[in-house]
Order: sequence, then structure tokens, then C-alpha cells
Amino acid sequence: MTTDLQQTSSVAGRPVWRRRHVKEDGRELFLYGHAKPSAVTVGESLLAAPTVSELRRHPLRGEWSVYAGGRQNRTYKPATIDDPLAPARAGAAPTEIPFTDFEIAVIENRFPSFSFAGSNNNIYGQDDGFDRAKAGGRCEVVIYTPAHEGSLATLSAERRRLLVEVWIDRYAALFAMGCKAVLPFENRGEEVGVTLHHPHGQIYGFGFTPRVQADAARAFEGGYDLSGALKNWRTNFEIAEQGGVVAFAPPFARFPYETWLAPFARREGLWDFSADEREGLAALLGDMTRRYDQFFGRPCPYMLSLHAAPGGGSRNYHFTAQFYPLLRSSDKIKYLASVEQATGVFTVDVLPEAAAAALRAL
Amino acid sequence: MTTDLQQTSSVAGRPVWRRRHVKEDGRELFLYGHAKPSAVTVGESLLAAPTVSELRRHPLRGEWSVYAGGRQNRTYKPATIDDPLAPARAGAAPTEIPFTDFEIAVIENRFPSFSFAGSNNNIYGQDDGFDRAKAGGRCEVVIYTPAHEGSLATLSAERRRLLVEVWIDRYAALFAMGCKAVLPFENRGEEVGVTLHHPHGQIYGFGFTPRVQADAARAFEGGYDLSGALKNWRTNFEIAEQGGVVAFAPPFARFPYETWLAPFARREGLWDFSADEREGLAALLGDMTRRYDQFFGRPCPYMLSLHAAPGGGSRNYHFTAQFYPLLRSSDKIKYLASVEQATGVFTVDVLPEAAAAALRAL
Repeated sequence: MTTDLQQTSSVAGRPVWRRRHVKEDGRELFLYGHAKPSAVTVGESLLAAPTVSELRRHPLRGEWSVYAGGRQNRTYKPATIDDPLAPARAGAAPTEIPFTDFEIAVIENRFPSFSFAGSNNNIYGQDDGFDRAKAGGRCEVVIYTPAHEGSLATLSAERRRLLVEVWIDRYAALFAMGCKAVLPFENRGEEVGVTLHHPHGQIYGFGFTPRVQADAARAFEGGYDLSGALKNWRTNFEIAEQGGVVAFAPPFARFPYETWLAPFARREGLWDFSADEREGLAALLGDMTRRYDQFFGRPCPYMLSLHAAPGGGSRNYHFTAQFYPLLRSSDKIKYLASVEQATGVFTVDVLPEAAAAALRAL
Repeated sequence: MTTDLQQTSSVAGRPVWRRRHVKEDGRELFLYGHAKPSAVTVGESLLAAPTVSELRRHPLRGEWSVYAGGRQNRTYKPATIDDPLAPARAGAAPTEIPFTDFEIAVIENRFPSFSFAGSNNNIYGQDDGFDRAKAGGRCEVVIYTPAHEGSLATLSAERRRLLVEVWIDRYAALFAMGCKAVLPFENRGEEVGVTLHHPHGQIYGFGFTPRVQADAARAFEGGYDLSGALKNWRTNFEIAEQGGVVAFAPPFARFPYETWLAPFARREGLWDFSADEREGLAALLGDMTRRYDQFFGRPCPYMLSLHAAPGGGSRNYHFTAQFYPLLRSSDKIKYLASVEQATGVFTVDVLPEAAAAALRAL
């Protein structure tokens, strides 16, 4: 239960501090802030049960899935009083965070799908007619704020900007652990199955490169030129722009109001972004969330994922952040049904250029 | 508005009849039955609005999606009185079917995502930095019964068996039209976004081979041996067996209670099934639906899709029917969120061998 403090970067001359804390169950916890996070721990905190998981390969799809029986008992829509991502409070039930305050906190997931630490023993031999492998990797939860409620749209500009620095620090840490692909993401809304309403995202570090990431790396290595495409799409597909970063509806969107954020200039990952681009991305994350909520007249359920080059770099890779909203109108959910699940072909009712026009007009 | 009658096959010596009817809007309608379907049409029936759709290719995923703006206005959860899949009834609102009775009916979808007939004109040129193509293909609705309610579990054994013959006839017809891949499927339950509750499935015939289908064909051509694997899986993964067809939880299932049906012997598609295997498949479709409903204590929402060799055949292909239930327990939905959507990696809480044991025990 040692803690140590380090400056990881700075924003406009202000340092970004990171305090590392190891919980009793061995999980790492990081507090990030412009103010130095306190070293004083308070009371007990939630501990993890050991989990075992394994990878199995789908022989017809060539994709790996992860099997983690222990996750079936994970926290499911707790009452606010039981918010496990809140800071510690005297007299309250223990949470994940044994500190009374923080700006942004990162903690290893209590129910990880992937872990380099777990034993991940095979329960059958190798002669069962399917491929299995250890589910090595790292699963982290990124807590945007100590507050119970909020969104990327309601966070302060400073907090969103700090979040970009936190992601950059986590990319470096997870790649250093041996992750081959690192995916910061956020699931928002009950329609996406979100079980905790405290504003947070997650990071999955994979010990292998998932198919979608491998395909993207191959496309970029093969010469796919997103910078050039973005120039062609300005009139019909662009929604907003800030600091050299553009929000646009990709012409080949799979979800009705899918949008992407990307720097005009090619960057492999957030770590390559200029200060202006980091500001631009942070601002557009808030701006797009606000546009979605305004457009649908309600907090828009979405999936947000950040796509950077795989570990070790990848020739010609171009970073994107991708929003997949789950609505096709304010009262209609976009369902993924048999055709999507059984073929990979998405049927899209809203033309991306129409989606771009609607979101641009707000 | 001509109609013609033909015998397409027979079941245990009883003929299967097909009456072809062309509606005013040019759409084909087929009535199938052991009794000769009547030629007498009754009143008006629902007509289609012209739709335009196009394919666009996701440059990073290598997958095509289909864009069909007209589908946004399709029928959405109508009241039973407005059931558009019911037979015609004097004094009632018009339905799709201008006949007073049928056993199984197949009709071209009124809101097709794919069509060989549509103009599918490009609305931009080819210089926009993304690939587009005509969305050629065929979308059909398969109406299992004239009754408003029911399921594969409550249909009579004879009707389920007839359905297998109807699928076989449709495979032949859609391949003959030029479809490269033909996917009979059923979406069941509001959780899957089903907008019509009348018991029915659909068939999508694609003018191209979707990625999942291409990957499967490649795996089989590369020597993947499902027959051999099925022998290894009997103890741990098998659920039921009938007529040389087995119901099992694939060890690499992506959904918590995913199950597949497959003949032990390799068959490219239903058209290669023996009479016993056709009986076995028909029986197991009912049996598995019943097991799901019993296990979850409610009508289980699922996606069911039939995977046969692409048009023109494919070396070593082995047919499977795949059930993807959307529940992980009676009151918990399996959500597909950021990790699944952004990487292709499914996180599975229920081990397939545990799912098989639970469903086998019923």
C-alpha cells in the first residue's frame, strides 16, 4: 500500500501529477490532477475476487473471444449510494477509491476480462478441436470526475483536456506492459448496458491484436490516406473543426449517426498530437456529445472508442475517435440484428451526409 | 397479376405446392402448402414504395454496408389489427397477402435493403474518397403461419418441416437470380428490434459475398473439419440430437447461450440434406426454441441465421444454423458494447460448456 508521486506531462505550463497507489488486492490505482493528489488514504476500499479467463478462437470468423465466468456476478446498476467509483466518504460504504478527492482516477478493473496476472489455466487439453490461449492484457476504469453524474459534455474544458493527458499516459503504460493493442472507450447509457452511471470510461489493453485493429493497420499500411479523404469530405461530411481536428460523419458509417474525430494531419496516436490538436480533440469530444444530446433531445446512448496504432507502431496509421450512437431517432433504438451479426453487413437508414448536415446545423 | 401453380418437392410422399403471384407493384408472392393454394385473390393488398439503396465499403474494416434511406419509414410495431402479414379478410385493412389462407407465404420485402430491380443510382461521383456499388440482391419475408402469434416452438411439426422445404426452394430461386450468398434468418423479440410480431423470418440474398460468409468459406476450403470437431464435442458441448443433426453450444460461442444446429455429416446446404436430416433439423429448431423459452422462463429474444455454402458451391463447406439469444439470464440482456463493436472481440460471461449442460438438462 505504498504511494508515489510523479509529474507525467504538462498542459499550458501547468504540471500533470500522477499518484500511484497499490491496493491490498494488488491492483494499481492512479490519481491524476493539476493539483498534487493527496497521499492520505481513508478507510477500506472494495477488493477484487480472483478471476480466470481464457481466449478461444472462432474458426470460421478468425476472431478471438474472451471467456470470463467470474464476470457474471459483477456490479449491476447499483443505487447512487453504492456508487463504487466515488471517492471515500466517512461513514459511507467502501468504494474503489480510498481517497477523499481526485480530479481523474484510473483503477484496474475489479472484474477484468484480460489480465497478465491471472493464472488463466486451461481447463481442457488442446485436443478438443478448438484453439484456446491465455487472455493476457489489462483492463482499467477511467473515472472522469468525483461527481456521481455528468458526461463528456458537462465536464469542464480543463477536465476534458486532462483526460487526454491521462489517456496518453495510459497508452504508454499499457504498451510498456506488453499490450499489443490499447483501446480507450466509453459506453454511455442503459441502452448500451452501462451498469454504473458514474461518469467513466474504460481502457482495454489486449495481449493480441484484435481483428478490427489488425485490419485497420493493414489498410493504412497498404496506403489508405485518411488525410486526403478528409479534404474531399469537407463539404458533405464535416460537422465541426477545432485546433486541426475535425468531427465528421464517415461516408461509410455503420450506425445511423456515427461520427469520427480525427486530426487533419496523420498522427499514429494521441501521443503524437500537438498541443493544439489535444485541445481540439478535447473540445470536440464535449461538442459532439452536446450535439448528440441536443439532436436526440435526451442523453444519447453511445459507444465511443479511440483507435490508435497498435503497439510498436504501424506504418501510415491515422488516429480516429469513433462515436457509435445507438439511436436512429429520439425514440427509436438502432438494433443490431441477424444481418449485422451474421454477415458483418450493416443496414443503415440514415445517409451519413444527411447525418452530418443535421449535426452540423446545431 | 397472374398466378401459376407448381409442385416443388415432396415430404414423405406428400407433394409441396407453390403458387406464384405477382402483385400490382411487381413484387413476387409465393404461397406454399401441402394443399394446393387457392388462386382466388381477395381485394387490395399493400403496395411498395420505390426505394433506392447503395453499398459503401468501410476502408478500414473491408466490409460493405448498405444505405437505404427509404427504410426509415418502415412499419414499426403495428397493432395486431394492422398485422400486414395476415391473410386478407373481408372488411379488414389490406395486408401484404391478397389471399384468404395459406400454409407458408413468401413475399418480396416491401422495404428491401437489396434489390436487383432498383435503379440504385449513385448520387455522387467516384472521386469522393470512398468505394460505392449497387446494392443488388433480394429481400424476402417468410410468413410461417396465417396466425398472428406463435413461434418455431409452437408451429406444428408438419409446418416446421414444410418450412425447411420452402427454404430449399428459396435458396434455389435466389441463387438462380444471381445472389452470391443467401441468408435465411429470423429476428425474434422486441429486444432484437422486431417490428412485426406475426411469426415470420426473412431471407437476404446478397449480390456479393459478405465478409463473414467469405471468411467461413475460406476456413472450410482451408480444411476446417466440423464433422471431426463435433465428435470431440459430444460429451461437453452437445445438447440434443435428431435424425443425424446435432444441437450444440460451439466452444467458441460469442453469445452467452449461443447454439448451433449442424448435420454430423458434411452438407453444403439444406438442399444436400437427407430426408432424415431435414426432419431432424425441423424438429431441433422447435426443440431449441422450446428449451430457450423454458430456460429463461419467457419467450427468448434471439437471432437465428442459416449458413450455407455461397452460390456456386464452396469446397468442404459445412452447413450450420446459428441461434444467438440476447439474454444472459432471464432478466439480463446481453449487450454488445464498445469492445465488441470496436474490436470484434466478444466478452462472454457464460462458458459454452456450462450453457450446453444447462440447456441439455431441460
